[in-house]
Amino acid sequence: MTLSSTIQAAVMPGVRVPVEVRRFSRPQLEPGAILLETIYSEVCGTDVHLHEGHLAGVPFPIIPGHVSVGRVAETGGEVLDLEGTPLRAGDVITFLDVHETCGKCWYCTVAKASTRCPSRRVYGITYSADEGLLGGWTQAIYLKPGVKTLRLPANLPPRRFIAAGCGLPTSVHAIERAEIGLGDSVVIQGSGPVGLNAVALAQLRGAGQVIVVGAPALRLEMARAMGADAVIDITEMGPAERVAAVKALTGGRGADVTIEATGSPAAVREGMQMTRDAGRYVVVGQYTDVGEVAINPHWDLNRKHLDVRGCWGSDFSHFYRGVRVLARYGDRFPWDRLISAEYSLEQAGQALADVAELKVVKALIRP
Amino acid sequence: MTLSSTIQAAVMPGVRVPVEVRRFSRPQLEPGAILLETIYSEVCGTDVHLHEGHLAGVPFPIIPGHVSVGRVAETGGEVLDLEGTPLRAGDVITFLDVHETCGKCWYCTVAKASTRCPSRRVYGITYSADEGLLGGWTQAIYLKPGVKTLRLPANLPPRRFIAAGCGLPTSVHAIERAEIGLGDSVVIQGSGPVGLNAVALAQLRGAGQVIVVGAPALRLEMARAMGADAVIDITEMGPAERVAAVKALTGGRGADVTIEATGSPAAVREGMQMTRDAGRYVVVGQYTDVGEVAINPHWDLNRKHLDVRGCWGSDFSHFYRGVRVLARYGDRFPWDRLISAEYSLEQAGQALADVAELKVVKALIRP
Amino acid sequence: MTLSSTIQAAVMPGVRVPVEVRRFSRPQLEPGAILLETIYSEVCGTDVHLHEGHLAGVPFPIIPGHVSVGRVAETGGEVLDLEGTPLRAGDVITFLDVHETCGKCWYCTVAKASTRCPSRRVYGITYSADEGLLGGWTQAIYLKPGVKTLRLPANLPPRRFIAAGCGLPTSVHAIERAEIGLGDSVVIQGSGPVGLNAVALAQLRGAGQVIVVGAPALRLEMARAMGADAVIDITEMGPAERVAAVKALTGGRGADVTIEATGSPAAVREGMQMTRDAGRYVVVGQYTDVGEVAINPHWDLNRKHLDVRGCWGSDFSHFYRGVRVLARYGDRFPWDRLISAEYSLEQAGQALADVAELKVVKALIRP
Amino acid sequence: MTLSSTIQAAVMPGVRVPVEVRRFSRPQLEPGAILLETIYSEVCGTDVHLHEGHLAGVPFPIIPGHVSVGRVAETGGEVLDLEGTPLRAGDVITFLDVHETCGKCWYCTVAKASTRCPSRRVYGITYSADEGLLGGWTQAIYLKPGVKTLRLPANLPPRRFIAAGCGLPTSVHAIERAEIGLGDSVVIQGSGPVGLNAVALAQLRGAGQVIVVGAPALRLEMARAMGADAVIDITEMGPAERVAAVKALTGGRGADVTIEATGSPAAVREGMQMTRDAGRYVVVGQYTDVGEVAINPHWDLNRKHLDVRGCWGSDFSHFYRGVRVLARYGDRFPWDRLISAEYSLEQAGQALADVAELKVVKALIRP
Repeated sequence: MTLSSTIQAAVMPGVRVPVEVRRFSRPQLEPGAILLETIYSEVCGTDVHLHEGHLAGVPFPIIPGHVSVGRVAETGGEVLDLEGTPLRAGDVITFLDVHETCGKCWYCTVAKASTRCPSRRVYGITYSADEGLLGGWTQAIYLKPGVKTLRLPANLPPRRFIAAGCGLPTSVHAIERAEIGLGDSVVIQGSGPVGLNAVALAQLRGAGQVIVVGAPALRLEMARAMGADAVIDITEMGPAERVAAVKALTGGRGADVTIEATGSPAAVREGMQMTRDAGRYVVVGQYTDVGEVAINPHWDLNRKHLDVRGCWGSDFSHFYRGVRVLARYGDRFPWDRLISAEYSLEQAGQALADVAELKVVKALIRP
Repeated sequence: MTLSSTIQAAVMPGVRVPVEVRRFSRPQLEPGAILLETIYSEVCGTDVHLHEGHLAGVPFPIIPGHVSVGRVAETGGEVLDLEGTPLRAGDVITFLDVHETCGKCWYCTVAKASTRCPSRRVYGITYSADEGLLGGWTQAIYLKPGVKTLRLPANLPPRRFIAAGCGLPTSVHAIERAEIGLGDSVVIQGSGPVGLNAVALAQLRGAGQVIVVGAPALRLEMARAMGADAVIDITEMGPAERVAAVKALTGGRGADVTIEATGSPAAVREGMQMTRDAGRYVVVGQYTDVGEVAINPHWDLNRKHLDVRGCWGSDFSHFYRGVRVLARYGDRFPWDRLISAEYSLEQAGQALADVAELKVVKALIRP
Repeated sequence: MTLSSTIQAAVMPGVRVPVEVRRFSRPQLEPGAILLETIYSEVCGTDVHLHEGHLAGVPFPIIPGHVSVGRVAETGGEVLDLEGTPLRAGDVITFLDVHETCGKCWYCTVAKASTRCPSRRVYGITYSADEGLLGGWTQAIYLKPGVKTLRLPANLPPRRFIAAGCGLPTSVHAIERAEIGLGDSVVIQGSGPVGLNAVALAQLRGAGQVIVVGAPALRLEMARAMGADAVIDITEMGPAERVAAVKALTGGRGADVTIEATGSPAAVREGMQMTRDAGRYVVVGQYTDVGEVAINPHWDLNRKHLDVRGCWGSDFSHFYRGVRVLARYGDRFPWDRLISAEYSLEQAGQALADVAELKVVKALIRP
Repeated sequence: MTLSSTIQAAVMPGVRVPVEVRRFSRPQLEPGAILLETIYSEVCGTDVHLHEGHLAGVPFPIIPGHVSVGRVAETGGEVLDLEGTPLRAGDVITFLDVHETCGKCWYCTVAKASTRCPSRRVYGITYSADEGLLGGWTQAIYLKPGVKTLRLPANLPPRRFIAAGCGLPTSVHAIERAEIGLGDSVVIQGSGPVGLNAVALAQLRGAGQVIVVGAPALRLEMARAMGADAVIDITEMGPAERVAAVKALTGGRGADVTIEATGSPAAVREGMQMTRDAGRYVVVGQYTDVGEVAINPHWDLNRKHLDVRGCWGSDFSHFYRGVRVLARYGDRFPWDRLISAEYSLEQAGQALADVAELKVVKALIRP
């Protein structure tokens, strides 16, 4: 395919407004910019949240799709990759959706917590379609100067990359926060893309046991396929039974490490209780505000000597490490099977509905 | 004073039963045991909790007093201190109240979380008076074989040691968990013995600013005297105002580190909100179960990228480090002034009442 | 086999004195002790060092063999395993060779560095044959009260356990010190049992690339079989070329993490140079004193912003974690193939010679 | 003083070529740039190294002086400080000498080791005088767009700031790497500006004991004044005696933490030996290549289970934290007394000579 002077994109005009295909002019490139011909983009749970209006400050209309892979169509002069090699037309690359992290503010320089930089913008989420082709559900994505790109390694097919999708850097970050020790028992709450990636990554940290707590059956089967030693179906057991089941599987103590990837506030207290005394609990799935949960600070935190670690966003290191791992261990886990269905730009609304209803694990947009 | 064959001790017979002085026979020493003639013991908030029945599993009657200092009266054969020097009658020593940590169980060996060892017993709390002189409100304390002792350094007077009291190792542990960076802004919730010790220790980690949130005025004055840059009186402001006050004092961001030392569940959410994004929040004051608190996992944990760290008990390293610090920096902070009043064994009940009513900062028992 | 009243053991009488089989009376058991009927013990490079006299303070005559596996023959009363279950005759267990770590000294309690506890003794190395059956090259091993035992999991055959051998806990410790990040490039210097175990473990930490620098060809083939992405034969290249080869394989930067497991002082500077700026270098293979090496502190340490981490011995957590990992991932890596040959007690001297000449990877004693 | 159209600066034309005053035209400001009227700059040991030719790649002629403080004379449009407040003429600020750290390369993004970023340039060291007023020994310093600035807090006088000088951020970085625990024994090798700052900072981490090993007497007196508990004069004892002296002062074990700030390769092995088993050793003083040192990897690294941590440069967080600490604790330690002498631009050569001969602790340039 050669890009024409008109670029089609699937646009989300507003909260609960149907997604529609719009046409944009092919942009002129600033120096340092890249025009990327989209190979695949993805539909993830976040896109459903955006459409439902669960996230504040989204500048509708937007072109959704934060993780994508494509072929370089054109560059604004010489643009180098991370290793200093110039990018050429046809090179298959991906890019970090998070951009404009400033590198100068207090959070970037003193706290070294760049995922809390106030200047941070995210492709497919906090850029408006009025600002350009700044999301993935489009024939071509405009990569602004300074967007951090990565050449896909030869042994990493684009389809596998998008199968892992945005859940990969997110779970790399969560796994980093989790500090899994060799042989540790790990519980993963949630069997969506973040949770399923975490199942593989926990094994790549040498977990001695991986237990997934989630639903529906399709996703729990997928969790098994990714290597989970045990699964607990939340449609079959109540919270207290689930905590008891985890304890029974872990010598009565609970998990050394629990990773929350559910989006449900109630899961947070349950996760604390599933974790052993002096264990670590990473909360990564509370991406939007869907309410409160009561905890007992004596039992759930203090006496437990528990570490609870919120985990927001990801930075380039998580993205880079995710790609390295996927290239090295892509054959060891069935990442490819995470994709249940492909959709065209015209079918993007349907893709969103299927993800919302958990009919698919991962939906892929092929413009 | 020479110990006679009868030892008097103040005994707490049960929940809300008045403390009374009882007489015990002077014990025979097993090999490795030490009989310690008490110089001082202390009354702390925990003793009030015990008397109120807030802690499960207390084997009444007990001899309260978990941190004490005394003179060696007698040893069961040769007993060595930490550095391998034999203890002699008259040596001024203290000891770690936590005993029987097994060193063999899964928590001790694999998790390396000895404060969660199930065999752990605590002088003055989980030993019964029926088992011996195993608390500090007594003329002589029986140190079982293997109890970890420490010679008081020459430049550390016993009264100063007991002024810092059990709040010192507890706050050493909390400060260790807090990972304060040089120049960090630190909020301490609570102005009791743990909080006041933490004010000094935060400065001994190079905090750039120390803010205390507490009451009553007497204790906040003491916080100022210990070096707090600012105090927030909880009787003068509501929770939202207090959070706003902390933000105003910290450039709008909140504290880098917050340490909870209050005993009030509601303080926990407030503390999360007082802490900056990607900061650290240590929960050390929820020693007993006094209820729940609602949190919002999206705002309070995940989006904040917050670290919440429960902190239970202390081990010998915290005790040892506390003593080293007190010896080196004892003149720099007015630790001595933490003691508001001294009580005899007969007055122990009154001491308890005064602590319960926050009439004193620290009450000292002088048998 | 039933143990008779006479137990045969292979004894190393002194430095370079031939190993010989001696007969011992079957010991009476103290309360808490275990008599273990040996299934397998191992011969490792350390045994060669002992025989060569490279380690000071060895109390010859000794019964070598520090890592072993066996069947419980008899216990001195009820003896519990780590989880509190009583051991029964016939149970297949192993044990930590390091014993008498005191749990009371400054190193154990304050520094929390139990591998530097001065009371520490090691089965097969620092116990004399005059003290009992305190090594593995014997029909039965006497486990003193308090020796830390572990039941072998059902899915971990004794032969596989001994194939991993003492190299497993040692490399678990080294890998823990190495703090490998997901996707990191890892160089392992040395292709003996520690190095080969580290090849597997590096992959179980999600290394993006594993490079082994060693010899001879047999062991490098084994490294490949364990999953090394590249091997560098030290008989084919000099030090500068090897450093250049590592840089060429790692984008010009050097390895994120290097683990030294060679026993050669010269390897230490080479390893520093193979590691990228701000990387980590773990030195675990300098178990005996075989001389000095010159380094340039400006280039090799300071300007490199390098972390160099010595790694001594192992504790029960490393042993436990090693067993957990081997049980969970034993089929993923060809650990079984590390055993090149089995020897009887009578052939122990030959086993030693074969290990010394690097004729075998791992020699196994089957009494 | 008002800046005229001609700016005078002291220039180092080349290795061992005498420093001379030259005149430059007052520069035109790019947008985002700042012209800073110098209040003070400093002369440090690095300047001597530069003049001696110990550092490769210095683009002579240079205007030395990497840490300076001044008044804003002019800005290129609106320029914000770290907190987002616009800088005004007359504001007293300082700036991080390290500039052009790219924020995009592998070291900046993946390794998160920005002090190893290859694009990094340093005011007063790696910028040529031909490129502009890019050092501190001048009436006015040109701060390029993006140079990281910091308003001096009201309670931090410029003279005190420059007294701490470049040794402060360097020692903040070293202290961060050192991970001093409360009550730890700390040895500081070297009594120059880095070492003397480290004496104060070690106490601000709660060190239980601070021992300085250095010379000459003037500096050791200063170390005492900064709070060192003991000093060891290297002109009075040989290396082995010094190691023995440290052991005698630390209960026979050696220091928990040693920080090397000497510039002498031989100090490195001595420092390893002064450190206790399982301690930490930070090497920060080997800024230039002055040769090799032999170590014994068995005794000095592996068996010791030692952590050796090279420490290169500093980033904005170290600079910011240093300023925070100096503002908060500036009265507690006699930082002001580190300045032994002031020099005009014309006297810069003399200043350099006095520093080289260790006649002064810290020389200050007042243009």
